[in-house]
Amino acid sequence: MSTTLFNLQLEHIAHLQRAYEQVLTKSGFDSLAIYSGHADYHFADDHAASFQTYGHFVHWVGLADIQHSWLVIAPNTRPQLYLYAPDDFWHLPTKLPEEPWVSALDVHLCSTKTAPTLTGKAVVIGDIESVSTDISQALKADVAPNALVQALDELRMFKTPYEVACLREANRLAIAGHQAAQTAFIGASGELDIQLAYLAASRQRESNVPYQNIIGLNNHAGVLHYQHYDLTPPKQRFSLLVDAGRRFRGYCADITRTYAGPDAPAVFGELVNALHRLKDEMVESIVPNVDYVGLHKQMHHSLGNILVAHDLFKGSAQQAVEEGVTRAFCPHGLGHSLGLQVHDVAGLRHPDGTPAPAPTEHPALRLTRTLKPGMVVTIEPGLYFIPMLLKPLRDKALPINWTLVDQLLPCGGIRIEDNVLVTESSFENLTP
Amino acid sequence: MSTTLFNLQLEHIAHLQRAYEQVLTKSGFDSLAIYSGHADYHFADDHAASFQTYGHFVHWVGLADIQHSWLVIAPNTRPQLYLYAPDDFWHLPTKLPEEPWVSALDVHLCSTKTAPTLTGKAVVIGDIESVSTDISQALKADVAPNALVQALDELRMFKTPYEVACLREANRLAIAGHQAAQTAFIGASGELDIQLAYLAASRQRESNVPYQNIIGLNNHAGVLHYQHYDLTPPKQRFSLLVDAGRRFRGYCADITRTYAGPDAPAVFGELVNALHRLKDEMVESIVPNVDYVGLHKQMHHSLGNILVAHDLFKGSAQQAVEEGVTRAFCPHGLGHSLGLQVHDVAGLRHPDGTPAPAPTEHPALRLTRTLKPGMVVTIEPGLYFIPMLLKPLRDKALPINWTLVDQLLPCGGIRIEDNVLVTESSFENLTP
Repeated sequence: MSTTLFNLQLEHIAHLQRAYEQVLTKSGFDSLAIYSGHADYHFADDHAASFQTYGHFVHWVGLADIQHSWLVIAPNTRPQLYLYAPDDFWHLPTKLPEEPWVSALDVHLCSTKTAPTLTGKAVVIGDIESVSTDISQALKADVAPNALVQALDELRMFKTPYEVACLREANRLAIAGHQAAQTAFIGASGELDIQLAYLAASRQRESNVPYQNIIGLNNHAGVLHYQHYDLTPPKQRFSLLVDAGRRFRGYCADITRTYAGPDAPAVFGELVNALHRLKDEMVESIVPNVDYVGLHKQMHHSLGNILVAHDLFKGSAQQAVEEGVTRAFCPHGLGHSLGLQVHDVAGLRHPDGTPAPAPTEHPALRLTRTLKPGMVVTIEPGLYFIPMLLKPLRDKALPINWTLVDQLLPCGGIRIEDNVLVTESSFENLTP
Repeated sequence: MSTTLFNLQLEHIAHLQRAYEQVLTKSGFDSLAIYSGHADYHFADDHAASFQTYGHFVHWVGLADIQHSWLVIAPNTRPQLYLYAPDDFWHLPTKLPEEPWVSALDVHLCSTKTAPTLTGKAVVIGDIESVSTDISQALKADVAPNALVQALDELRMFKTPYEVACLREANRLAIAGHQAAQTAFIGASGELDIQLAYLAASRQRESNVPYQNIIGLNNHAGVLHYQHYDLTPPKQRFSLLVDAGRRFRGYCADITRTYAGPDAPAVFGELVNALHRLKDEMVESIVPNVDYVGLHKQMHHSLGNILVAHDLFKGSAQQAVEEGVTRAFCPHGLGHSLGLQVHDVAGLRHPDGTPAPAPTEHPALRLTRTLKPGMVVTIEPGLYFIPMLLKPLRDKALPINWTLVDQLLPCGGIRIEDNVLVTESSFENLTP
């Protein structure tokens, strides 16, 4: 790892220390314990389910698989890391990397599951309900009030230069996976083999991906969170949608690409190109103080224009939006905040912590904020042919070109997604 | 799928119906609801952890990823499957396969999460604590007593011909993976790429494996449940241990192979061969009414012989066992019961349900039963060079060849594991 990144990480930790001190002082607390969380076992079994370390814990240490550990933050005190690392020949014990950030913390190696030492008026955040009675009784702290957690969530909206560097690297690795997936699709692979090609090229195992990769061939491209990988390739290849990421030091890439296959009608390839242009147009609209809900509405107007331009809708773009046609072709939001979680925290709040829910007519929108420098968001316009959503439109007297829609049904849909940083004056696209 | 398997499956369901009726009648209950379970979300996130359907549910339906569903069993009544399958454009809705077993059940498709209809004195098994208050209040049933769950666990010890056919097919697919892993090791791949080669050849994704595949190069072969896959290959290649499986209709294969690499001392390759012979010898010792704890002790005597024959121990085999030397070289048990879970239920019980714990000096043994026809067990002798376990022996005046042990430390260890059915008169090795 480069010296630059290590230095940025030390500055990131110093920034967190200052920011946490302010939050604690404002809330009237002397110290804060952050619990890492731990994996749960499958019911009536001795194998554990998959796990990810609590985001606020990863915010400090950059490790997304730490369990049964604690981090204690207090004003004018170095962060105290109580790392659970028992002697164990069944598993490789947790070991901190030899990196500069470790020297910014006091590390206590714990051979048993223990409660951390806390001073003064202490609070705790994390999945405390999962902690054993022994430890929760030994923990001299109250559960933190919501306002405190919200203030810490809010810190995560604004990325430090270290966090931006991590998100950029996660994107670089994910794009290698996307290129391999495209190659596998050209080579007529099925979904499982496309997924394995993605993992091999992006250098990761499935249980470390930030979210389950969506690898949808043909009509599976129209299932928004399609959750399987078919073992065998289909006979005809209309389309491939790949929505797949990568973690780097906890930070998530979230990139989507769609490809037209040899059996797709020509108009599908043209629509893929139109969605690429729409993604670029939306990315270029990003500037400080722009309202993300406004951008989402702008996407719907552009989708209306695309439906008209490609002869899918024989009315006006405005009519397509007003009659809910664009919403039937794109039922999800323009995007979301991105960071240590793929749908990161604090997306549906005003900066003061009060809720800013999604508009009634756009319930799936996960980000309703006014964009500010340091925010990282996804921009992911989509256009789908989903029978369940198109069915109600068929009964209405709308000027939809159903012949063309029916030709496109086997292609499932299109989504193109990049990850974008809001800068002081405009934007930086983190997706190469 | 072959007609034979489909017919065997119908007979399996008819057998379960009879066996469950007996258990229910004996316990004085009129009906039983089995809850499938459902995935939990990661703390403070909108993504779910990995999940496996409750074993007793899978026992009937053979599907290991069913969620929020119920199966109701009652005497003289067809099994009632309440399958949660909402209209959903975010996910591909659950759909039953077009297979004969479906016609043996009454299927109720549920578009919302609902409690099943129960009659008479009803009980429920499964992860009931995770069910919402609405549903648990609507459920007119008590939590089943332990004795009933134990009786159902006991049924799982004895495999029907359908279950044996599934375990055989799971083994066939897993072996394809092992061959690909060996090839990748010869080609100097690292752990991640060996794992991806295994998954590609055995046709599965990581989140569907019955347990986390162990792919350990060099000293990682000596970490019993080694949990990582290094991204880059090591400079020297001493050894590879692959402990990896495959599910087929819910049933688990669990196979281990170890390979000597080009940089291993010659004695390591000889020890790998010796462990293959020991595995064969233990498999051939399987016969109805043999005591599995006795087989485990027999393994330790044979390990003593191997230590002596390969000059690792300069005393007698008996001394190696009595002084705990073989236990330091092999800290795990000979194996375990295998079925719908990789460490299957009821391994540490007498047939009447009373506990039969592992012997004090062999605490990691997971199976203490007298073997009977229909049981399927793993046979997995091992020999490891684990610094943490060898350390206490170094301080004693034992005739251990430490020079040779130290040469072998970089090889980590050896484990060879097959899956074996106890037949009416002897055994069938299910691992090709």
